[in-house]
Amino acid sequence: MNSDIRQLLENVKSGVITIDDAVLELKKAPFEELGYAKVDMHRKLRQGAAEVIYGAGKTPEQILGIVKKMVSAGQERILITRMSEEAASYVGAGVPLDYHKDAKIGIVGSVPEATGIGTIVVATGGTSDIPVAEEAALTAEFLGNKVVRLYDVGVAGLHRLLSHMDEIMNASVIIAIAGMEGALASVIGGLADCPVIAVPTSVGYGASYQGISALLSMLNSCASGVTVVNIDNGFGAGYSASMINHMEVRS
Amino acid sequence: MNSDIRQLLENVKSGVITIDDAVLELKKAPFEELGYAKVDMHRKLRQGAAEVIYGAGKTPEQILGIVKKMVSAGQERILITRMSEEAASYVGAGVPLDYHKDAKIGIVGSVPEATGIGTIVVATGGTSDIPVAEEAALTAEFLGNKVVRLYDVGVAGLHRLLSHMDEIMNASVIIAIAGMEGALASVIGGLADCPVIAVPTSVGYGASYQGISALLSMLNSCASGVTVVNIDNGFGAGYSASMINHMEVRS
Amino acid sequence: MNSDIRQLLENVKSGVITIDDAVLELKKAPFEELGYAKVDMHRKLRQGAAEVIYGAGKTPEQILGIVKKMVSAGQERILITRMSEEAASYVGAGVPLDYHKDAKIGIVGSVPEATGIGTIVVATGGTSDIPVAEEAALTAEFLGNKVVRLYDVGVAGLHRLLSHMDEIMNASVIIAIAGMEGALASVIGGLADCPVIAVPTSVGYGASYQGISALLSMLNSCASGVTVVNIDNGFGAGYSASMINHMEVRS
Amino acid sequence: MNSDIRQLLENVKSGVITIDDAVLELKKAPFEELGYAKVDMHRKLRQGAAEVIYGAGKTPEQILGIVKKMVSAGQERILITRMSEEAASYVGAGVPLDYHKDAKIGIVGSVPEATGIGTIVVATGGTSDIPVAEEAALTAEFLGNKVVRLYDVGVAGLHRLLSHMDEIMNASVIIAIAGMEGALASVIGGLADCPVIAVPTSVGYGASYQGISALLSMLNSCASGVTVVNIDNGFGAGYSASMINHMEVRS
Amino acid sequence: MNSDIRQLLENVKSGVITIDDAVLELKKAPFEELGYAKVDMHRKLRQGAAEVIYGAGKTPEQILGIVKKMVSAGQERILITRMSEEAASYVGAGVPLDYHKDAKIGIVGSVPEATGIGTIVVATGGTSDIPVAEEAALTAEFLGNKVVRLYDVGVAGLHRLLSHMDEIMNASVIIAIAGMEGALASVIGGLADCPVIAVPTSVGYGASYQGISALLSMLNSCASGVTVVNIDNGFGAGYSASMINHMEVRS
Amino acid sequence: MNSDIRQLLENVKSGVITIDDAVLELKKAPFEELGYAKVDMHRKLRQGAAEVIYGAGKTPEQILGIVKKMVSAGQERILITRMSEEAASYVGAGVPLDYHKDAKIGIVGSVPEATGIGTIVVATGGTSDIPVAEEAALTAEFLGNKVVRLYDVGVAGLHRLLSHMDEIMNASVIIAIAGMEGALASVIGGLADCPVIAVPTSVGYGASYQGISALLSMLNSCASGVTVVNIDNGFGAGYSASMINHMEVRS
Amino acid sequence: MNSDIRQLLENVKSGVITIDDAVLELKKAPFEELGYAKVDMHRKLRQGAAEVIYGAGKTPEQILGIVKKMVSAGQERILITRMSEEAASYVGAGVPLDYHKDAKIGIVGSVPEATGIGTIVVATGGTSDIPVAEEAALTAEFLGNKVVRLYDVGVAGLHRLLSHMDEIMNASVIIAIAGMEGALASVIGGLADCPVIAVPTSVGYGASYQGISALLSMLNSCASGVTVVNIDNGFGAGYSASMINHMEVRS
Amino acid sequence: MNSDIRQLLENVKSGVITIDDAVLELKKAPFEELGYAKVDMHRKLRQGAAEVIYGAGKTPEQILGIVKKMVSAGQERILITRMSEEAASYVGAGVPLDYHKDAKIGIVGSVPEATGIGTIVVATGGTSDIPVAEEAALTAEFLGNKVVRLYDVGVAGLHRLLSHMDEIMNASVIIAIAGMEGALASVIGGLADCPVIAVPTSVGYGASYQGISALLSMLNSCASGVTVVNIDNGFGAGYSASMINHMEVRS
Repeated sequence: MNSDIRQLLENVKSGVITIDDAVLELKKAPFEELGYAKVDMHRKLRQGAAEVIYGAGKTPEQILGIVKKMVSAGQERILITRMSEEAASYVGAGVPLDYHKDAKIGIVGSVPEATGIGTIVVATGGTSDIPVAEEAALTAEFLGNKVVRLYDVGVAGLHRLLSHMDEIMNASVIIAIAGMEGALASVIGGLADCPVIAVPTSVGYGASYQGISALLSMLNSCASGVTVVNIDNGFGAGYSASMINHMEVRS
Repeated sequence: MNSDIRQLLENVKSGVITIDDAVLELKKAPFEELGYAKVDMHRKLRQGAAEVIYGAGKTPEQILGIVKKMVSAGQERILITRMSEEAASYVGAGVPLDYHKDAKIGIVGSVPEATGIGTIVVATGGTSDIPVAEEAALTAEFLGNKVVRLYDVGVAGLHRLLSHMDEIMNASVIIAIAGMEGALASVIGGLADCPVIAVPTSVGYGASYQGISALLSMLNSCASGVTVVNIDNGFGAGYSASMINHMEVRS
Repeated sequence: MNSDIRQLLENVKSGVITIDDAVLELKKAPFEELGYAKVDMHRKLRQGAAEVIYGAGKTPEQILGIVKKMVSAGQERILITRMSEEAASYVGAGVPLDYHKDAKIGIVGSVPEATGIGTIVVATGGTSDIPVAEEAALTAEFLGNKVVRLYDVGVAGLHRLLSHMDEIMNASVIIAIAGMEGALASVIGGLADCPVIAVPTSVGYGASYQGISALLSMLNSCASGVTVVNIDNGFGAGYSASMINHMEVRS
Repeated sequence: MNSDIRQLLENVKSGVITIDDAVLELKKAPFEELGYAKVDMHRKLRQGAAEVIYGAGKTPEQILGIVKKMVSAGQERILITRMSEEAASYVGAGVPLDYHKDAKIGIVGSVPEATGIGTIVVATGGTSDIPVAEEAALTAEFLGNKVVRLYDVGVAGLHRLLSHMDEIMNASVIIAIAGMEGALASVIGGLADCPVIAVPTSVGYGASYQGISALLSMLNSCASGVTVVNIDNGFGAGYSASMINHMEVRS
Repeated sequence: MNSDIRQLLENVKSGVITIDDAVLELKKAPFEELGYAKVDMHRKLRQGAAEVIYGAGKTPEQILGIVKKMVSAGQERILITRMSEEAASYVGAGVPLDYHKDAKIGIVGSVPEATGIGTIVVATGGTSDIPVAEEAALTAEFLGNKVVRLYDVGVAGLHRLLSHMDEIMNASVIIAIAGMEGALASVIGGLADCPVIAVPTSVGYGASYQGISALLSMLNSCASGVTVVNIDNGFGAGYSASMINHMEVRS
Repeated sequence: MNSDIRQLLENVKSGVITIDDAVLELKKAPFEELGYAKVDMHRKLRQGAAEVIYGAGKTPEQILGIVKKMVSAGQERILITRMSEEAASYVGAGVPLDYHKDAKIGIVGSVPEATGIGTIVVATGGTSDIPVAEEAALTAEFLGNKVVRLYDVGVAGLHRLLSHMDEIMNASVIIAIAGMEGALASVIGGLADCPVIAVPTSVGYGASYQGISALLSMLNSCASGVTVVNIDNGFGAGYSASMINHMEVRS
Repeated sequence: MNSDIRQLLENVKSGVITIDDAVLELKKAPFEELGYAKVDMHRKLRQGAAEVIYGAGKTPEQILGIVKKMVSAGQERILITRMSEEAASYVGAGVPLDYHKDAKIGIVGSVPEATGIGTIVVATGGTSDIPVAEEAALTAEFLGNKVVRLYDVGVAGLHRLLSHMDEIMNASVIIAIAGMEGALASVIGGLADCPVIAVPTSVGYGASYQGISALLSMLNSCASGVTVVNIDNGFGAGYSASMINHMEVRS
Repeated sequence: MNSDIRQLLENVKSGVITIDDAVLELKKAPFEELGYAKVDMHRKLRQGAAEVIYGAGKTPEQILGIVKKMVSAGQERILITRMSEEAASYVGAGVPLDYHKDAKIGIVGSVPEATGIGTIVVATGGTSDIPVAEEAALTAEFLGNKVVRLYDVGVAGLHRLLSHMDEIMNASVIIAIAGMEGALASVIGGLADCPVIAVPTSVGYGASYQGISALLSMLNSCASGVTVVNIDNGFGAGYSASMINHMEVRS
């Protein structure tokens, strides 16, 4: 995952770049003050290449400002989550932007080739869970993963899920997304033999309590290998799934 | 009503009753006229069949007292729920008692022949749910139903449940009992085409919150035909299932 | 309840239709992909004839698309719940639609003759509960049941309820709908000797907490034979009541 | 209610006692330090005669100490609530004490004649609510009220309640005590035309949550004239009911 | 309180009206079907004269319909609570209406002379609690009580409250209304020697949770003689206070 | 006290005052004697300094009215919190007003010189917490404190916080403001050796529950020296911090 | 499927099977065809490795019975979680057992060589979290992982955590375990560049609410790459961490 | 930083360190550079003073071990909180220990002279709050403060509190401790002009919910200058109060 920095060091060792140039590359301040936000340049060293902007609660002007700063600092691609349509059209006027309305995700730069161990499956219980699922799927693709989408395979119609046993058995990570009773995570967790990341959604009414019901279900899953993220946190699931799908041997 | 009121007013006028007594009579009138008598008589009609004693919070002496009173009033069989072992041994010393320790149920008299439309299936997610399941199953048998038990068929091992498709498809009512994430009710509700009564149990730890997690899951079930009773209320599920299994045409 | 499929088999046996035609009828894929939703054709086999669309969270275009697919697949009648007025006018422009504004229910095709064991009584505590009650009542009628409506018979004016003792005593299933303190379910449960399905509503203010108060009351009902569905879930109550009212002997 | 102090002043005016004696009587410090507790002597002036000790969290020694101080300060009768059996036997060894085990109430001195406007009815939904009811009833009697007990008249068996219409219609205040779904308060509130004080109890299991269910029900009662006290607070209900039953004209 | 019916009976006894006329008067059905609401005429017998309409969730047309029916049935005065401005202007076009915008209360007919034992004090912690307080105060005045308003006397500025000791000491009932921490009820309960009805309000932010904080505070009040109604339920407090202020001896 | 009481009693005896008036005097005695006067005078002493208006729930007209009253009473500077833009433009038209839109704070008059023991540091976890932070910072400045702002130093990027160790070590009070998981308070509490006031914010989504998550985190902080105020209560934190920063020796 | 259905229909026509049996066959069809068999076979494949027994709620006799059955079926090693000391001594008398009292874990057979990508770090906030941590660590070791333990490195003493930067930076998965405010997960999540599994514990008092505070903190972590399991669920964390640490390329 | 990095790169180039080790060094860089060392050194500076052991969840052996280690390291005095009687007698056998049973506090060494700005007042609402109050008071004394105790001055008897106006007005910090409705903090906060630290206690029953009621009250206090600590956290309040009472000018 730290392939960028490792590449740099190898280039130093092999003489492809001089030590002076490498110092220049590395000494960029780990974070830069922007007044309203600290842009973390050091994270690139620790957590790999791409940078993410959490769009909620930021003005379109602030988002564009951060994007420009990052681009001029050499950031190849940027993922903006929870981005309103208004922000998208403002930012899109300043830099080329690929905006996904349902998922509220904007992407600057191109999505990379899929690397990683295998395939990430993103499954939802119903059609109303799709926006969260797309946030997860696009995040995973942005971070260099192959994604298979299985939408509307909720447990109340079990045959819909069972007809996708091949995808489930072949996945390297599965993201199970459901509102209401959230049973999808347990059923998939029982079927699959890979890590399952469960995402409760705020879909439902009455005693679903904006996702509490699904959240509690998923935390109490009797299937092993299931971990949980915050309600509607598609990004977090996609990010963690990508981390797992890019595991590599460390000395 | 008119003649009664007229009589009353004449009695007021002639001084046969005081104004205070007349005010009281008039306040009660609408209740007496409408339903009071019916309610009372109706209760007597309904009490022809089996009677149930809720054992929790009653002393052994009180339970035995009620049992003896009922027996001498001609009650053929009596079901005692939430009965402690201590109460069972005390009562058992006074009358013949069939005590089921796990279910905390005591039965005086013999269980009747199974009547009813079909079979009641009692299914549990795990082995820890069995005490609640037995309360439900014994209640249903006591009320004259054929019961099939499917224990430990939780959704994390779906094959266990699917290997019982015949029983599920043939049931007239299914009682789905589960703690933790309570997904069993949704999965069964999606498979079966008969009424499903879901019973959350207090089994679990941490965020299961003594059954809240399962309760919310079951209330939010996306499968149609699922209704829910209180946490650990095996008796209530068995009673309702028996009612449904004994439906008959009314004019 | 599986009268359609049973009829088909009897027609096969008696030679009314050929085996080829029957295979054609049965081999329709159990569910069809529509991009945004899987239309479940197999449910017809398992759970009888009519199909239901949950309208919340679907665009008018999506609803119309599903309706058309189902109609062309031979679905006689379709029930659409939680349907906005906007969706109703859009869908109504494409297919004949009977829209009930209060209940937010749209019906394609005609409501069938009432069959079933007896009458379903739908009772409410107040006038504000009527939209939920109509969702329940229209669902039950759509599924072939005779429905009697008892609205505004809350327990704070007991004589209003008691004046309907005949309907209560004659019901085969009662749906008790109430917000605020939700006591209606217990009182009816104590009076009636048939299954009672309780529906808490989000009617109320302050400590009613959008239906929690009524939900807890109903789950804790000290009357036997009461089961509960989600807050405001009129459809679920109507569906379950119809299932119960159509119980039939299975071998 | 301030009859003691009024009596003192009338005795001053008529010369029955001297001004010096009256000063002596009045100048007793409004509260006395006892180290572990301030005994409030002034409350007698403001809130009438009898004094109450809240026994929970006090050692038997502390209770006896306070009792003795109060007795020597001229207190005629003392009510001790939430008094353990252990405390009762210790205190009873020091002063004559009438202890009620169920209600956990101890009384020093004799209960007065019943005064007040009318009768206080104490009603419970079940037999398990009786300890709370006895706390309420004994408190009311201790404060000089006539009390009628209607126990086990829960709404699931409405005829039990309706057979006591006379008592309900004649009450000056009714204390309605129930656990589980707490519907008793609403039903009585709808029947009666006097103030109703509702006491939720912690009786129940599962989703009764130690009285929350009953508490919420009672707060949401759709019957007018119902107010609520804390869960299991029989004393508070008895005290308030007595206050209401002793209302008198003030200039 | 049942002075109307008592008066009628006395008129019968004294011959002021004939028995026939009295029968006519009494035999009016206890409630009349209006389709959308059952108007309870019998309550007049049980709970005195004035009738109340709960305006929330009713259309302006429905409210006017009920009002007209009641007026033509001889109702002298009508109180409409939770009445929107829109409803007020619609109803006001049909019948003379006195509308109080803050309290959302409309009154048809004139407010009666104050009767009752003494004065009802309505106190609030802050200015934001005034709408709830006015609902309580206007209700109490409508039901024939003298009301004293003490607004903005919250406990964080104790001198404001203490400067009204005369009103507090002279009250026959006090309604204590507060949001946020709700401490007003306890402080007043400790000062006064009359019944205190506490009304939590939804005023506040953050951890006030729309009144939960105040509600819990008031239920846990360590002052005796305090009872509680639902959050923001000014009407309920005014109604109960009036009941208490009109207590009279019953045989 | 004795002479007062004696005089009162003599007046009773001689008929100078009525018994009713004497009762009232005696009921009030302990309050008047002990604290009443002190409370009132003390309040006047404390009001020499700046005054604060809580703007929420007040109309622009009301705010301006209070401001004018205070100015004409000699108040040098006034702080208005939770002030809407609409109110600001209305009030600003009447008196010179310095309005801070983000913090929703308006200031009349000039901010004083910074006095106090040292510097108050205001730190936030993210950029979305800044409005609450500005409410705290402006309040502290208004009350005469030097303030250092450290924004966007959340614990997920620990190096951002650690690069400000000097400011943290030198602070006399630190206000730690964070939503979501609220860990900032604990980390700062562990680093600093001055009082830390934690402010949870309603920033976040899903299981942050409008600040509950942060609130609970902060209350459970394992760092000593951390106290907490209400969610989003920047003013309260600034006010308390100023109090602490102005501690001075009292005899 | 076609040939099966055709055969079935021909059997119906020829009377080889009854219509009832044919209906049942058709209801089960979609499940059998799609996934049933796969599920069952797949389960057999997965069971080659180590097996786990959840000891809570099982009697010592039951545990020993299961263990013996598994051993005789060729199971090499068995992990028993939530095992009481009583159960351990009973089972230990029957088979060789390695019991870890703190973690309540029993192991039959020997722990395997560590395989996997790298090292799993198990970190705790305090010493009271160690039992949960040991459950996680022993589970991971049992499943073939190298484990490094970092105990008592809570965020209130940040230097303790920072002095272990090498272990944190080199980990392949980190399990962060904390009660109270649960901030450890966020801080570690911000430092590390590998997946972090957070385990809230029930350690704490007051507003920690048996782990809710830590659970909410962890779900709301602003650090990417953090997922969460149930309160005190050390086993689940160890199991998931092992899955991740054993990721391998799939075709 | 540059020279370090340059050195590192030269070592990479020359093969002195491997690329893997260099990657690790670079990942840690920003932390080491910024704060790591400072944190560690600072901790040593702060540990000159008294040290505290949190006794809950530690065995008597563990506590004694820590104490002995600290004593031999030169620690003059040690405070042990939440110490059981059992632990106290064990530790007391090993070192001289002053144990306070109510407060569950043990002190090794002598309490120092009181220094600090002024007096800390510790006030409680009732007698049951005294254990928490003693934890606060002893902590403050241990840390070198003069403490004044005002116990049992709850707001339901306001005269008790008002009779201590002098102490309240003269305090430099006040710790207000109360269970049930927790109103004490608001009333004291309104009276005093010094910082108030509120401690909710778990004293109460029913809807006090082990301190939630008091906690919410205190967080919502309408008095300025009030901050809150965890339920029953007397130590935290005493510690913070001491910090405030020892404020001194920093450059």
